[in-house]
Amino acid sequence: MNIALDAMGGDYAPEAIVQGALWAQSELGVNITLVGDQNLIRKELSKGGNIGNRIQIHHCSQMVAMDESPVKVLRHKKDASIMVAFRLVKSGQAEAVVSAGNSGATVGAAVLTLGRIKGVERPALAGIFPGAKGRVVLIDVGANVDTRPRQLFEFGIMGNIFACSLLNIDNPKVGLLSIGEEGGKGNEQVRIAHDLLKKGPFNFIGNVEGRDIFSGDVQVIVSDGFVGNVALKLSEGLAEAMGIMLEREMSRGLISKLGFWLGRKAFENFKRNLDYAEYGGALLLGIKGVGIICHGSSSPKAIKNAIRIAADFVNNHVQERLEEGLAKFLSEGT
Amino acid sequence: MNIALDAMGGDYAPEAIVQGALWAQSELGVNITLVGDQNLIRKELSKGGNIGNRIQIHHCSQMVAMDESPVKVLRHKKDASIMVAFRLVKSGQAEAVVSAGNSGATVGAAVLTLGRIKGVERPALAGIFPGAKGRVVLIDVGANVDTRPRQLFEFGIMGNIFACSLLNIDNPKVGLLSIGEEGGKGNEQVRIAHDLLKKGPFNFIGNVEGRDIFSGDVQVIVSDGFVGNVALKLSEGLAEAMGIMLEREMSRGLISKLGFWLGRKAFENFKRNLDYAEYGGALLLGIKGVGIICHGSSSPKAIKNAIRIAADFVNNHVQERLEEGLAKFLSEGT
Repeated sequence: MNIALDAMGGDYAPEAIVQGALWAQSELGVNITLVGDQNLIRKELSKGGNIGNRIQIHHCSQMVAMDESPVKVLRHKKDASIMVAFRLVKSGQAEAVVSAGNSGATVGAAVLTLGRIKGVERPALAGIFPGAKGRVVLIDVGANVDTRPRQLFEFGIMGNIFACSLLNIDNPKVGLLSIGEEGGKGNEQVRIAHDLLKKGPFNFIGNVEGRDIFSGDVQVIVSDGFVGNVALKLSEGLAEAMGIMLEREMSRGLISKLGFWLGRKAFENFKRNLDYAEYGGALLLGIKGVGIICHGSSSPKAIKNAIRIAADFVNNHVQERLEEGLAKFLSEGT
Repeated sequence: MNIALDAMGGDYAPEAIVQGALWAQSELGVNITLVGDQNLIRKELSKGGNIGNRIQIHHCSQMVAMDESPVKVLRHKKDASIMVAFRLVKSGQAEAVVSAGNSGATVGAAVLTLGRIKGVERPALAGIFPGAKGRVVLIDVGANVDTRPRQLFEFGIMGNIFACSLLNIDNPKVGLLSIGEEGGKGNEQVRIAHDLLKKGPFNFIGNVEGRDIFSGDVQVIVSDGFVGNVALKLSEGLAEAMGIMLEREMSRGLISKLGFWLGRKAFENFKRNLDYAEYGGALLLGIKGVGIICHGSSSPKAIKNAIRIAADFVNNHVQERLEEGLAKFLSEGT
C-alpha cells in the first residue's frame, strides 16, 4: 500500500507533514509518497536522520495557499501538490491521498481527478466524533453548503456503509440533524430529507438534535455541510475552552492543585479523547478513491493518525463497499 | 416589578416551576404571578410551606403540550397558560413572561399578543454562552429557520444592543457564523448577509467560525436559528458528555480518585460554568415586551435564574434601548 501525502498543504507544512510521515512510516509500516517541492521536503527529511526507503518524493512545482479560491486552483494550478497527489491515485501509483491543505481545493481536486461514484451527486466529508457511548459519524462536515434533500439522502447511504465497514458498527442507527425530534421540525431542506431518509436502506431513527452528536445513542448523523462544519469547529473550540476553564479552576487553591497533579494522567486521557489529532481527519466519501482531509493546523500526530485511517479505509475495502452499496440501491430503483 | 411565570410549561411543570418561583421570590424579592391551573399550583405551593404574599396565582383552563403544533395553539387555545401570561404583559399587569414550555408556541404567543418592535421582521432568541474570555451572545438560537439575510442583519442590530445593555459589554465585536473567515465563504444566505452586516451600526468584524462561540474573542454572533439551535444543544450535549468522560477517567485508579476527591470543588465550579441552568434561558428579542424561554427540562434553579434575567432585562431598560436603536437605525434610512 502507498499513501500520497500532500507535503505542501497545512498551516505547518511541510515540517509537520514530513514529521507525521516519518512517524507513520515507523509506526504503521506503510509506504508514503510525499508530494511537493523536493528541495523543501529533502530539507525536512534530513532533520529526521536517515531517510527510510519507504518514503518517496514526488516533485511538483506548485502549491496551494489556505485561502486560495478552489476554482482558480483547479483551472490554473495543474501542478499543485494536491492535484498531483490525486493523479497518483488515478494512475494507480497510490491508494489514497492525505492532505491538511485548502479543503475546498482538495475536494475539488478529488472530484475532478478521480470522479464521483455512480449514484453520488455530491461527495461528502465524514467526521468521527467521540461520543459518551462510542464513536459517532457526522456526514457532511463541510464539503457542501446549500445541500438538497436528495443529497442528504445520499449522505445517509454513505454514512451507514462507512460506519459498518470502517468502524465495524453493526446496523448503526442513522439520524437526521434537526432542531426537534418530530419529523415536521426543522428547515425546509430537512423536512423533505426526513421523508426521503425514512425509505432508505438503513436503520433510520428520525430527527436527532445537536446534543446527540456526543451522546452516542445514534451512530450516524446526516447534516448539511454548513451545519456540520459549524458543529465540528464548535466541538473543537468547546473542548479547548473547557480545558482552559478546568485548569483555571484547578489552579485556584492548594488542595485543588494537588488534586490536579494527582489526577494529571486521567486529565491527559480525557483531553486526548477530545483531541481532533487523535482522529486524524475527515474522510471524503463518494469519490472513486480515498481522500482524507486533515485540520489545517494538523500536528505530526494528526498526520500520522490520518495516514492510519487512510490505511484502514483501504484495508477494509470501504471504497468497494460504498460502490457496491450505491449500485445495489440504484438497481433497486427506490 | 411583576413577572408572569408559565406554571404549566416544561417537562417538570408545575413542580419545578413553582419551586423556582419560591426560590426566586426569596432570593430576588420580585413579585411573581404563576399562570396555570390554580388547583395544581396551590398543591405545589403548599409543599413549600407558607405562601409568600408576593406569589399570586392567575388561573387559566388550558395548557400546551411540549410537542403541540404552535399554529393550533394560537388558533384554538386562547386560554392556554402561555397565551394568558403574555396578555398579562399586554394589559400592564406584568413586565415579563418566563416559560419553559413549548418554545414555538411561546414565540408565537409573544408575537401575536404583544406584536413586534417597529423595524423587526422576525423576533429572535438570544442565548448566552460561557466563553473562555467572557460571555458570548448567540442570536438566533431557534426562533426562526430559513432566515433571510435582511433578518440576519436585524439580529446583528438587536444582539449588539442586547450585549451593551444587559451584559454591559462596551462596543462588542459582532461576527457572522459561517464556515470560513473570508466574506465569500458560507452558504448563499450568509454571503449576502455578510455584505449587509458590514454596513451595520455596530462593530462588525466579519465571519466567525464554530470555535469562536467559546473563545470569547467576539461577543455577539449572528446565526440562522437552525444552526444556532444545533449549536446550543450540541454545547449542552458536549458539556454533559465531557463530564461523564472526565469522571470515568478520574475513577480509574486510586491516585486519580484521590485527585478527583481533592479537586471536587474545582470540578463543581467548572461544571456550574457550563450548566445551562446558570443562564436560565434564552431571551426573545424584537417583541414589544420581555419574554424568556427556558430549557424544557428546566430545574427550579434554571427557573430562578431565568426570573433574575427577566428582572435584569426590565431594570436595565433593554426593551426601550432595543426600540430606540431600531428607530434610530430606521430613521437614518440605511
